[in-house]
Amino acid sequence: MKKRTVIGIAGGSGSGKSTLVGQITERLSPKLLTVLRHDAYYHDLSRMPVELRRTENWDHPDALDNELFRQHLEMLILGESVDQPTYDFKTHSRTSEVLKIESGAVIFVEGILLLAVPEIRRLVDVRIFVDTPPEERIMRRMIRDTRERGRTLESVAHQFRSTVRPMHDEFVEPSRRHAHLIVPWDWQMDTEPAIQVILAALHGFCQSAE
Amino acid sequence: MKKRTVIGIAGGSGSGKSTLVGQITERLSPKLLTVLRHDAYYHDLSRMPVELRRTENWDHPDALDNELFRQHLEMLILGESVDQPTYDFKTHSRTSEVLKIESGAVIFVEGILLLAVPEIRRLVDVRIFVDTPPEERIMRRMIRDTRERGRTLESVAHQFRSTVRPMHDEFVEPSRRHAHLIVPWDWQMDTEPAIQVILAALHGFCQSAE
Repeated sequence: MKKRTVIGIAGGSGSGKSTLVGQITERLSPKLLTVLRHDAYYHDLSRMPVELRRTENWDHPDALDNELFRQHLEMLILGESVDQPTYDFKTHSRTSEVLKIESGAVIFVEGILLLAVPEIRRLVDVRIFVDTPPEERIMRRMIRDTRERGRTLESVAHQFRSTVRPMHDEFVEPSRRHAHLIVPWDWQMDTEPAIQVILAALHGFCQSAE
Repeated sequence: MKKRTVIGIAGGSGSGKSTLVGQITERLSPKLLTVLRHDAYYHDLSRMPVELRRTENWDHPDALDNELFRQHLEMLILGESVDQPTYDFKTHSRTSEVLKIESGAVIFVEGILLLAVPEIRRLVDVRIFVDTPPEERIMRRMIRDTRERGRTLESVAHQFRSTVRPMHDEFVEPSRRHAHLIVPWDWQMDTEPAIQVILAALHGFCQSAE
């Protein structure tokens, strides 16, 4: 059996992880590539009263169903397909739908806390950390959450101060030391060379898995 | 004419640059690859009194013949070969020998100050910075310079305090912001995944230049 390569993309909220993954995957054949998002594996809070769900600490590793994520990642590594849960961030609960994910030659995993959870980290062959200054990350988040998610600036600031930043300092930033490669993703920075290197490497990994 | 890719490896003294370049180049066909070392281009000090040569600040960008290095790099990019000077670090002078360097599909440039010199930096397509903690870097240098270069620990410490560290803080560390990729190279860190990514990417760049 040929070896599948697991590439992990971690980094703080607003660091540019999803943009990076998007810019890579749009230029690769979907057949070669599997993308598994850590944030599809938030714990189902449907049995928690609605008003309490919103105060949940979304940036703590325990907010995620890491055991299920690990099982699914191990299945993908073995060449099996998995039923990824889908999460409704409005009600903070798992929907009844699942997303069938086939195992590709390269398995991409993405998430803020990916390198902070040891049992997941040890399954990741190439650990990439997207490094973006905090002022740039909060600006992006304030724009995104007000424009796309109907939030107020004050509620974004409150969440950032009460959970996002403390959890970043406690879990995300220290997990950087487990990264094999760091991609700086500041404003006006040319990220194309990093994408070209990762893309070229992915092509190489795909060929060696053929 | 097919495009040649220039890969630059920068990072402080003792960061592991040369080890990284060695581990990559030993696994690639020499035909595909050109390596140009910035430190072969130190200014010839043969007309300076011997006792003064040793006090030269080797970690300042002006200690290097950046104009000749830039010319040679531009020639390699155009597919021409160059005569790289060879430097005698004992007498701090250029020897009468030159090293003929042919232009490959991928041109590797390596040096502490590579990203700190704008006219060189702009020729580098993929800028990689090797990031190693200062205590690890000085330990490596103290071992190397006493074991391999017959220096005393005290003279290494004096040089580190008087020029290596101030120049690192003034030129090398700030040049990190120009890097597209950062490779952490701490003690006991597994650097093999980063090497695999760079190697796979180089194979891709070589193929696209064929």
